[in-house]
Amino acid sequence: MFRHRRPVRFAEVDAARIVYFARHLDYCHDALEALFAPLPGGYAHLTMVRGVGVPSVRVEVDYLAPLRYGDVVLIDVTVERLGTRSVTFRHALTREADGVRCANVRQVVVLCRLDDLASVDIPVDVRSLLAPHVVSPGT
Amino acid sequence: MFRHRRPVRFAEVDAARIVYFARHLDYCHDALEALFAPLPGGYAHLTMVRGVGVPSVRVEVDYLAPLRYGDVVLIDVTVERLGTRSVTFRHALTREADGVRCANVRQVVVLCRLDDLASVDIPVDVRSLLAPHVVSPGT
Amino acid sequence: MFRHRRPVRFAEVDAARIVYFARHLDYCHDALEALFAPLPGGYAHLTMVRGVGVPSVRVEVDYLAPLRYGDVVLIDVTVERLGTRSVTFRHALTREADGVRCANVRQVVVLCRLDDLASVDIPVDVRSLLAPHVVSPGT
Amino acid sequence: MFRHRRPVRFAEVDAARIVYFARHLDYCHDALEALFAPLPGGYAHLTMVRGVGVPSVRVEVDYLAPLRYGDVVLIDVTVERLGTRSVTFRHALTREADGVRCANVRQVVVLCRLDDLASVDIPVDVRSLLAPHVVSPGT
Repeated sequence: MFRHRRPVRFAEVDAARIVYFARHLDYCHDALEALFAPLPGGYAHLTMVRGVGVPSVRVEVDYLAPLRYGDVVLIDVTVERLGTRSVTFRHALTREADGVRCANVRQVVVLCRLDDLASVDIPVDVRSLLAPHVVSPGT
Repeated sequence: MFRHRRPVRFAEVDAARIVYFARHLDYCHDALEALFAPLPGGYAHLTMVRGVGVPSVRVEVDYLAPLRYGDVVLIDVTVERLGTRSVTFRHALTREADGVRCANVRQVVVLCRLDDLASVDIPVDVRSLLAPHVVSPGT
Repeated sequence: MFRHRRPVRFAEVDAARIVYFARHLDYCHDALEALFAPLPGGYAHLTMVRGVGVPSVRVEVDYLAPLRYGDVVLIDVTVERLGTRSVTFRHALTREADGVRCANVRQVVVLCRLDDLASVDIPVDVRSLLAPHVVSPGT
Repeated sequence: MFRHRRPVRFAEVDAARIVYFARHLDYCHDALEALFAPLPGGYAHLTMVRGVGVPSVRVEVDYLAPLRYGDVVLIDVTVERLGTRSVTFRHALTREADGVRCANVRQVVVLCRLDDLASVDIPVDVRSLLAPHVVSPGT
C-alpha cells in the first residue's frame, strides 16, 4: 500500500462548497505521480522522454462522504491486478482528521506509447515499482 | 435524449496531449447544467437559492477513444433510472467530426439539501424535466 | 469590439464562494478562442496544425466586483495594439444581469512557433481577423 | 522571503505543451496557503471559520520563460507593502533545475469579511505572520 497525503486546495470545491466530483480523480493522479516518483525522472520522464503513458480505460468512483476545504485527504493506493499491459489500481480516499472514508476509486490503466497510443508491455522498472503494492482480493 | 455540444478547451489536455481523464466528468456536468437550464434560474438557482444539490454517489467511465484539442464533443444524456430521490444518468461522449464514441459515463446522483446533505425527494419540476429523457433498458 | 458570452460554471468558484481569481484568465482565453474561430479550423488549427501559438508575456487584472455561480459573464475584447509580432488585448468582464464591470484585463501576447517558442510575424489572416477590433487609446 | 516548492502537475499544461498561463496564479495561491499554514487551522480556518478572506484586487504577471511538465517551480514570496487592510505580494517563480526565472507576479489583496466582502483591518496574527517577509523596495 502506498499512501499519499494531499490537502484540499482552495479552488477545488464547487458552488455547493464540497470538493467537486471530478477532483477525486486529480487526487488519484497525484497519488500515482507520487508513487512513480522513484523512477529516474519520475512520471514526467516516463511520459515526456520515454514516451510511455498510462491512460485510463475505466474508472469507477463511489463517493461516500463529502470533502471540504480544510480537509486533508489520504489516498491509499493498492494494485488489484498487475497484468502484462494493464494495471488495476484501487485508491481509498480518507479524511485525515477523523479517518472517515470519503471515496473508493477503481482505475484501470493501459501502458501505451504516447505517439500512437498503442499498448505496450509494462516496462520492467515500472513493474518492479508496482509489484510490492499488489494486494490479493479479499485482503 | 438531451444533446449538449462542447468544444474541447485549450487547457483541457494534459502532458500526453489528450484530454485529461477527469475532464470527461466536467463535460458531463456541463451537459447537466444545460439540461437543467429550462428551470427558472437554471441549475444555479436550484443550487444557490433553493438549496438543492445533486451530488454524485457513483460514477463509472469507460474511455474508448482519445479526445484532443480541436475536437468537439457531443454529450448525449439519457436517464437510465428516475427514482424517488436518486437519478441514474448515462452520458455518451462522441467526437462530432467522425462520430467516434470516446467515452461512456454512468452517473448516479442523489437529490440533497445542501445545508446538511440530507437526501430529499426529487422536486416536481426537476422530475418533469428529466422524465422525457428516461430510456428503458435495452433501448 | 468582440463580445463573448460565458456562464460561470459550477466548479469555477472557490471556498469563498466567488469565482476564483485565476478563472478570469480562462474567460479571456475562451473569448480569444471564440474570436479566432473564423480562421479555418479555428484557434486549434492555428496551434496544432500550423504550429503557431500566442503565449502571453504579460497579464494585468483589476478585479472590481465579484462573480458568482449563476452569473453570466460578458467578455468584451478589443485590441489596444497590433504590433508586428505582438498583440495587446483588453478584456472588459461585465456581469450580464446588472451590467456591473467585474474585471479589466490587459493581456500582451507574442506570436510564436510552438516547436521552439521563437517569435514570428503575425500571420496575414490573423492580422485581418484582429484589425477590426483595434481601438485607439482614449476611445 | 518565503519559499514554496511545487512540481508542475500532469494536467497543468495546455495544448501548446507549456504550463497554461492561468496556472501561475494557482502556484501563487498555493504558496500563500503554505505561507499561512502556521496560523491555527491555516488559511482554511481563516476563511471557513473566521470568515476572513484575501481576495485579489489586482494581479500582474510577467511571463519570462516557459514551464513544462517535469519542472519543479520554486515560488519565492515577499511582501512589498503591508498596509492597514491590504497587502502587496511579490512572487518570483523559478525553475528549480536550472534556476531560470520563469515569471514575476505582483498581487494586491484586500482583507475582507467573506459574508459581505467588506474590507477589514489585517488581523494581528496575520500581520505577525507577514511582517518578517516585508522587503523594502530596491532590495
